[in-house]
Amino acid sequence: MIKVGIVGGTGYTGVELLRLLALHPEARVHAVTSRKEAGMRVDQMFQSLRGRCNLLFSSPDDGALEECDVVFFATPNGVAMHDAGRLLAAGVRVIDLSADFRIRDVAEWGRWYGMSHASPELVEQAVYGLPEVNRRELVSARLVANPGCYPTAVQLGLLPLIEAGVVDETALIADCKSGVSGAGRKAEVGGLLPEAGDSFRAYGVAGHRHLPEISQGLARAAGGPVGLTFVPHLTPMIRGIHATLYARLKQEVDLQALYSQRYADERFVDVMPPGSVPETRSVRGANLCRIAVYRPQGGDVVVVLSVIDNLVKGAAGQAVQNMNLMFGFAENAGLDVMPLMP
Amino acid sequence: MIKVGIVGGTGYTGVELLRLLALHPEARVHAVTSRKEAGMRVDQMFQSLRGRCNLLFSSPDDGALEECDVVFFATPNGVAMHDAGRLLAAGVRVIDLSADFRIRDVAEWGRWYGMSHASPELVEQAVYGLPEVNRRELVSARLVANPGCYPTAVQLGLLPLIEAGVVDETALIADCKSGVSGAGRKAEVGGLLPEAGDSFRAYGVAGHRHLPEISQGLARAAGGPVGLTFVPHLTPMIRGIHATLYARLKQEVDLQALYSQRYADERFVDVMPPGSVPETRSVRGANLCRIAVYRPQGGDVVVVLSVIDNLVKGAAGQAVQNMNLMFGFAENAGLDVMPLMP
Amino acid sequence: MIKVGIVGGTGYTGVELLRLLALHPEARVHAVTSRKEAGMRVDQMFQSLRGRCNLLFSSPDDGALEECDVVFFATPNGVAMHDAGRLLAAGVRVIDLSADFRIRDVAEWGRWYGMSHASPELVEQAVYGLPEVNRRELVSARLVANPGCYPTAVQLGLLPLIEAGVVDETALIADCKSGVSGAGRKAEVGGLLPEAGDSFRAYGVAGHRHLPEISQGLARAAGGPVGLTFVPHLTPMIRGIHATLYARLKQEVDLQALYSQRYADERFVDVMPPGSVPETRSVRGANLCRIAVYRPQGGDVVVVLSVIDNLVKGAAGQAVQNMNLMFGFAENAGLDVMPLMP
Amino acid sequence: MIKVGIVGGTGYTGVELLRLLALHPEARVHAVTSRKEAGMRVDQMFQSLRGRCNLLFSSPDDGALEECDVVFFATPNGVAMHDAGRLLAAGVRVIDLSADFRIRDVAEWGRWYGMSHASPELVEQAVYGLPEVNRRELVSARLVANPGCYPTAVQLGLLPLIEAGVVDETALIADCKSGVSGAGRKAEVGGLLPEAGDSFRAYGVAGHRHLPEISQGLARAAGGPVGLTFVPHLTPMIRGIHATLYARLKQEVDLQALYSQRYADERFVDVMPPGSVPETRSVRGANLCRIAVYRPQGGDVVVVLSVIDNLVKGAAGQAVQNMNLMFGFAENAGLDVMPLMP
Repeated sequence: MIKVGIVGGTGYTGVELLRLLALHPEARVHAVTSRKEAGMRVDQMFQSLRGRCNLLFSSPDDGALEECDVVFFATPNGVAMHDAGRLLAAGVRVIDLSADFRIRDVAEWGRWYGMSHASPELVEQAVYGLPEVNRRELVSARLVANPGCYPTAVQLGLLPLIEAGVVDETALIADCKSGVSGAGRKAEVGGLLPEAGDSFRAYGVAGHRHLPEISQGLARAAGGPVGLTFVPHLTPMIRGIHATLYARLKQEVDLQALYSQRYADERFVDVMPPGSVPETRSVRGANLCRIAVYRPQGGDVVVVLSVIDNLVKGAAGQAVQNMNLMFGFAENAGLDVMPLMP
Repeated sequence: MIKVGIVGGTGYTGVELLRLLALHPEARVHAVTSRKEAGMRVDQMFQSLRGRCNLLFSSPDDGALEECDVVFFATPNGVAMHDAGRLLAAGVRVIDLSADFRIRDVAEWGRWYGMSHASPELVEQAVYGLPEVNRRELVSARLVANPGCYPTAVQLGLLPLIEAGVVDETALIADCKSGVSGAGRKAEVGGLLPEAGDSFRAYGVAGHRHLPEISQGLARAAGGPVGLTFVPHLTPMIRGIHATLYARLKQEVDLQALYSQRYADERFVDVMPPGSVPETRSVRGANLCRIAVYRPQGGDVVVVLSVIDNLVKGAAGQAVQNMNLMFGFAENAGLDVMPLMP
Repeated sequence: MIKVGIVGGTGYTGVELLRLLALHPEARVHAVTSRKEAGMRVDQMFQSLRGRCNLLFSSPDDGALEECDVVFFATPNGVAMHDAGRLLAAGVRVIDLSADFRIRDVAEWGRWYGMSHASPELVEQAVYGLPEVNRRELVSARLVANPGCYPTAVQLGLLPLIEAGVVDETALIADCKSGVSGAGRKAEVGGLLPEAGDSFRAYGVAGHRHLPEISQGLARAAGGPVGLTFVPHLTPMIRGIHATLYARLKQEVDLQALYSQRYADERFVDVMPPGSVPETRSVRGANLCRIAVYRPQGGDVVVVLSVIDNLVKGAAGQAVQNMNLMFGFAENAGLDVMPLMP
Repeated sequence: MIKVGIVGGTGYTGVELLRLLALHPEARVHAVTSRKEAGMRVDQMFQSLRGRCNLLFSSPDDGALEECDVVFFATPNGVAMHDAGRLLAAGVRVIDLSADFRIRDVAEWGRWYGMSHASPELVEQAVYGLPEVNRRELVSARLVANPGCYPTAVQLGLLPLIEAGVVDETALIADCKSGVSGAGRKAEVGGLLPEAGDSFRAYGVAGHRHLPEISQGLARAAGGPVGLTFVPHLTPMIRGIHATLYARLKQEVDLQALYSQRYADERFVDVMPPGSVPETRSVRGANLCRIAVYRPQGGDVVVVLSVIDNLVKGAAGQAVQNMNLMFGFAENAGLDVMPLMP
């Protein structure tokens, strides 16, 4: 039984970690910190945890995090880069759910995130936590950069095409739709039900922070730069990301076979039968990515549909999956959760 | 064509006033104020007004309000009580959509609203703006206290019973459900789509500010104190209030006839045929209250169903109705808006 | 490992049973029947079950049900009363999620359900499956009448008051709100998202089928007839029931202590601290009833808030709980599912 | 005052016509037909029309349609092609909101719609009712094929680029998202709130009926065939279409100026300022298309965002706009409806 710490337990990825870890057979939450709510019972803020979580929010400075085997940062961008080093030095392994360690090029990171990086040396050590790409490196990782939600859905959807070299990697399009929880549990007018409900809109069209993260991952697979247009949208639902991906084929290929083989050994990626349309609700609450692939009218355009729950495979679930790899647990420990439908 | 001012144009009741007044044949919006957004185009904040509103938010102190014939306060509680006096003194008529002038007993007002009243003398002058009760007084009113949303739905639903003296007025129950826009356009976690969506909960069970307002109105009709249990709930929709009202009959009465007669001349109250269930969407966007009345299993319990759009008959629409009465316009001027269904 | 059959696996209670049983340590689904879909893979209809359910829908007549230890009827009303007898005779235990065996008075059942009962003799044998009332009888039950969703929420909310004899049981009010899944997975216009979405309405005000079921349960506790007004409403959410219950106190009582003691040993009923408001989402997907109790303004009206997930504690979860009792499993086997929040 | 008939008044486009025509200054609804509901009051089915519509549904065969100046077909595909001829012969002008007369190539129409066309000769006479393209022809049209919802949003979004010849017209992508009302008011499981709510999915990826309609319109503008990939999605909202359109620039062009000039005289198309993101709710209930155009990172990919209300500019509103043109009314008669926000 390992001891787990969670920094920033009042947001959606924090409470989602608590939901998943509550039933984990090998891990026990030792500390949940919140500078602002220190002293409050966790289940007073989150009724859903009543009877399952007996902790109080504690201060991140009270020493409890240092007693943990692993600490998750479920904090806004810019926090982990300051605090992870201290924990790593104390022998604690760190999984950061924010964006602090995802981009190798710290200058580019700085441009997109509007701050200069506090720990460039840690960026080099960090392993990008997409198990379907980096499983081997994750086993020994001490610092994991857990991927963003859009990057997870888009990379899992496009990687088979890129790795096989069968599409024009200079003209990729990712039209993505996210539920509102993707914006976090923040007091902002734009996320109010009367604002985001019963309406649909794009955002970040001119440039969204997940673009360099996706491009970095695809470029690595392509062995060179890629051209990607990424347009995220806000859709009036709570959880879920749907990525609709477009690429142009350069050569003939059996797409269904390509995807099935690529993910044959992946427990958390489901390549659906031809003609399927994955629904976001089919992964609601579960650590899964479901994918379907099309070639409309037999032309040279490939359309890939990729869905995840942004809070699970797109955040907390993938983080637990990474933890399982790091500590030698079964990869699905604590993750055998059924999707909630309807 | 009268000149209209709106103080606090960035909230839901403010933008709803702008929607309704945009097509009003006798009124023109002269100024929309927002201390915080002064200088911004109104239609930059509210896309829905593009092409229909050419105004900028202005400072409430620039003198434009004093040039108006009538000013609506669409502000948080506690603003109008400070600023209305100055406008009234300048000959401007005032319709306050907040709670500042609704409760005659300023001490009780102070207890529920947590501040002491700045203008008790204005409270005495204010006319409570429920046209179905105070139409005559509203014609000459200089200061109107526009009713709250729950109080409108509950009073219109219960008044026929109370006025006729046919129910035990010491044991009334109002179980009310509101859409999330009732909480205003405020940056608060509780109103986020992932918090308020796909969930249902009560609030203010121990005591809600609309209780004294409702009690005051019912007591006036009863000619003495009433006993009311009022439980409001938050329901995952944008607009709409549904009041389910329970009372115990003291004597036999033809309920359908009672309601039909009470509201026979009321254009904005629709008494539905026996067996109907009013849907909140049947009044979406419209200045209407629809009511159905039941006596389940022929017993002595009366059940009244009363629905309004909280932003229209529960706020901005009723305010325009009051303005129409005050200025001698047709009572439905600008209010012949069709409900939006679906 | 017992063998489980599900009759009528294409509705919401059927797929919910499949979700819960997929992770049950002591039970394995042996047959899922659907006359209409026989031969189709279950996970073709329900994507959420992909990878977790390898069954095809089969005909109810192919003999597989008779091989089971227990069969759940997740069918419309009027099916189980015809088919349960045959299975019982074959030694199969039966849990009926429909209303066929809930009402002891078959004549009254016939009036409310519009058909005459096909197996009155089985009604006498059936145990009403509310473990918090009938736990002992359930252990040896061969036929269980699983309670309705509203009846579960209302009875759990009112029973402490009735059993203690502290309220006027002739004047109870149950104002209930249900998500749309309560209407089943049926092709009906009224349940379409554009019809039921962003709107709120009552239904069945003149009389709803769950009224006699609730009254029967409360009367049993009261030791005599009760007077109940029950008004159900449709709220624009997927899952969840919120019952707001009103009763008049006849004597002084410590309400919080009363509820806490009544449910002290109940794992699936959570009496919340004073001042709490249970949210339906706090039990989403979980076999829980959360209750809070109020006495507004210290008067003699008790307000009880009781929430469940209509498909779990209100249907499939309670059915699994009953199965656990019948077979001597841990009562929470397969039911340690965390609520999904947000 | 012209007399208007509506065939098929029980669907969403039918009731939307009734909403808009209720306030039209030059038109009066003379007959609303429904074979199935003949004899029922229209406002019994649609509460929102209470007080605004005094008609009964009538049989389409009772002669009332022939007395009209214009008849709208708000029927499923395949009805108008049988019945329009008779009305046209009687001197009645016809506006068909279904797809019967939209595709010039009747053989292709037959392939997509699964039936052979009953009146190919009428297809030749029909004018495609997109006023922004065919305003002149519409003035004298006797039979108008009202465009589909997706085709309206996509064509208005892409036409400026195609007409100007500035993009590669062989590689267009239209990623479209629709509210659930787009599927009509039909009793189908897929549209239930628990199925379509809180979830997102594509559909018709292999080929959707609106593809040939869009391609026909774009090809006409291009003066030759176009290559279009069209992927529609279902989003959990009631009304609204959001088209996200991708094209590759062949030459330098000032996109903002191009769009502004193309639609300078169009009252119902709003080209938004640079950097805007149109929300579907900004056109809710109104006959408007709002468009924004982007060139992310200054590359050669154009992204166009185009939103409409599928029931208004995408159906009934555009039909009224066409009627106004046909009868010489002001083009905005009856269409000065404000969008409902929130």
